[in-house]
Amino acid sequence: MKIDGVAYRTIWLAGDGWSVEIIDQTKAPHDFALARLTSLEEAAHAIRAMLVRGAPLIGATAAYGVALALRADPSDAALEQACAVLLATRPTAVNLRWALERMRRHLSALPPAERAAAAYAEAAAVADEDVVINRAIGEHGAALIRQAALRKKPGEPVNVLTHCNAGWLATVDWGTALAPIYVAFEEGIKLHVWVDETRPRNQGASLTAWELNHHGVPHTVVVDNVGGHLMQHGMVDLCIVGTDRTTATGDVCNKIGTYLKALAAHDNGVPFYVALPSPTIDWGMADGVKEIPIEERDPREVTELTGITADGRIETIRVTPAGSPAANYGFDVTPARLVTGLVTERGVCPATRDGLLGLFPERRAVA
Amino acid sequence: MKIDGVAYRTIWLAGDGWSVEIIDQTKAPHDFALARLTSLEEAAHAIRAMLVRGAPLIGATAAYGVALALRADPSDAALEQACAVLLATRPTAVNLRWALERMRRHLSALPPAERAAAAYAEAAAVADEDVVINRAIGEHGAALIRQAALRKKPGEPVNVLTHCNAGWLATVDWGTALAPIYVAFEEGIKLHVWVDETRPRNQGASLTAWELNHHGVPHTVVVDNVGGHLMQHGMVDLCIVGTDRTTATGDVCNKIGTYLKALAAHDNGVPFYVALPSPTIDWGMADGVKEIPIEERDPREVTELTGITADGRIETIRVTPAGSPAANYGFDVTPARLVTGLVTERGVCPATRDGLLGLFPERRAVA
Repeated sequence: MKIDGVAYRTIWLAGDGWSVEIIDQTKAPHDFALARLTSLEEAAHAIRAMLVRGAPLIGATAAYGVALALRADPSDAALEQACAVLLATRPTAVNLRWALERMRRHLSALPPAERAAAAYAEAAAVADEDVVINRAIGEHGAALIRQAALRKKPGEPVNVLTHCNAGWLATVDWGTALAPIYVAFEEGIKLHVWVDETRPRNQGASLTAWELNHHGVPHTVVVDNVGGHLMQHGMVDLCIVGTDRTTATGDVCNKIGTYLKALAAHDNGVPFYVALPSPTIDWGMADGVKEIPIEERDPREVTELTGITADGRIETIRVTPAGSPAANYGFDVTPARLVTGLVTERGVCPATRDGLLGLFPERRAVA
Repeated sequence: MKIDGVAYRTIWLAGDGWSVEIIDQTKAPHDFALARLTSLEEAAHAIRAMLVRGAPLIGATAAYGVALALRADPSDAALEQACAVLLATRPTAVNLRWALERMRRHLSALPPAERAAAAYAEAAAVADEDVVINRAIGEHGAALIRQAALRKKPGEPVNVLTHCNAGWLATVDWGTALAPIYVAFEEGIKLHVWVDETRPRNQGASLTAWELNHHGVPHTVVVDNVGGHLMQHGMVDLCIVGTDRTTATGDVCNKIGTYLKALAAHDNGVPFYVALPSPTIDWGMADGVKEIPIEERDPREVTELTGITADGRIETIRVTPAGSPAANYGFDVTPARLVTGLVTERGVCPATRDGLLGLFPERRAVA
């Protein structure tokens, strides 16, 4: 996607042909900075310190981290060491484990002298495949926006509401929930995005707003409390959100607060779509509310906020009174009955077991 | 209610018998400070600069402002002038107009020499009546908490979720939505309050948390996104919120985000109560979603937050990227079908026209 007219990905091979450049996302939204990765250690740090975040981008960064390690030392021991160091950076990230397994399997079969070049090629493939998947989600989702546009009066934008950041900054390019918005925008469909702030970490107000702003997509930030009011008054044509985990029955685990927006959409007849690359489907799980464990995070994410002062200093402030405890649940589960459709790289389907198996028939035997 | 063991109201006659003391709420939640009002101008400033806020407290402060004015000059002209100055401080506040009309009607009939003493007596009556109404709301609402306690296992607290601040800081004492909580707590019922942060102005995270903390009521602050997850998992026994305006049919206009919590309560079979003094009922209005105009406030309430740094400085920070616009809708309307009951000073009734007329039969002719 674009930053002020210049096309970027979140990770790419530098002009020198071997080092790797990334957007340093710890600087967003108040500054834009790139970082250069020249070693395994720098790649591991970028993941650990969240210069890169979002499952697909973490996977691609890890793949390039293996390439940087093998450039220095292509031995079996170095390959094992690189995978171990990178896996330990974010132990629960599914894509991270998947990308490292893929790199190890592919590279260990090769003679050491060929490994570095092959590692760069495979890392590029990991990144490119993510772009292809997200672009496909974007195409399928854009058809829904196009249909909504047909129901609008001439000149009226399609109003899309999104929660959290499932945008290109979380992937290599395009994003998941935002991919349909970018594809529709590139097609010239007039649209406007309501951006949920997404407390406590404010990924909407910071990352989604930043992405849309720099790509030039019209948008407005609202606090998480506002979406119900907007939907009651016909100010939202459809909702699109991402997901961290989807059950085989179509229940959707996503950032805390998603469920409340799905309830409001259902109460007001607003379509509620969830965009997902198929690897986030947990084919062995049937009841999301009962089965998915919800992470409790540091309460300081609730009580403290970081931002920029009028004179340009970055400050962290506490907003709650001293002595008042806080709790910080990271995700919630939206039951499939509230989801209008799942937007995958293979197309859009109902949020049901049959719907998903229709798009992924190879899972019938497993399910 | 109590602040660290000492009983307070939000406004009271000082020990000197003529000046008026208030809690300066602009200092909450990071500091506790009193302010002394000695003139009409200081009373008007206290309302205008929001040292006092909340409709009932604004009304009481205005009444005392008239008393301070007449102590200096009891003439007809001074009475008119005092009412005009005070009314202009917050022109849309219904209680402010009501309290000033009451003072003017009562005092203009008296000879000037008797007016100052009568004004102090009438201001005290305005304040005391607010306490009586809120205490009655508290008694009726506490019965609901008591019933919920009977369904809990021994030792388990009743979990109450509230949104925004309808506490004693918004009134002279007790509050509206929080009055049942304080009454139940005084009775010794074991309870715990989930405090919605209530973006954008954070009245939950600041004022409600501050009140409960200093009175000693167990509570936990959560971001507004969390309530649905809590209700899905049986972690909320009932919700109680306040209201700024209630239609004759039971639709409830309250702080933005209330509707989303009512939807979640309905979806999970959690009782959703609204506490209100009867003057907030708009007997001429039938459809809240269609008829109640929703105030749009300064977008900077969304993009900027004020809090305290680790080293004790009060700072204001921007959390959104430069260039991203924000919208700030102040209230939403919860349809009566989502409200389990209305808790008034005369008892609890269904959120219907018949329910309200059952408690307020004198309105039958009007309605």
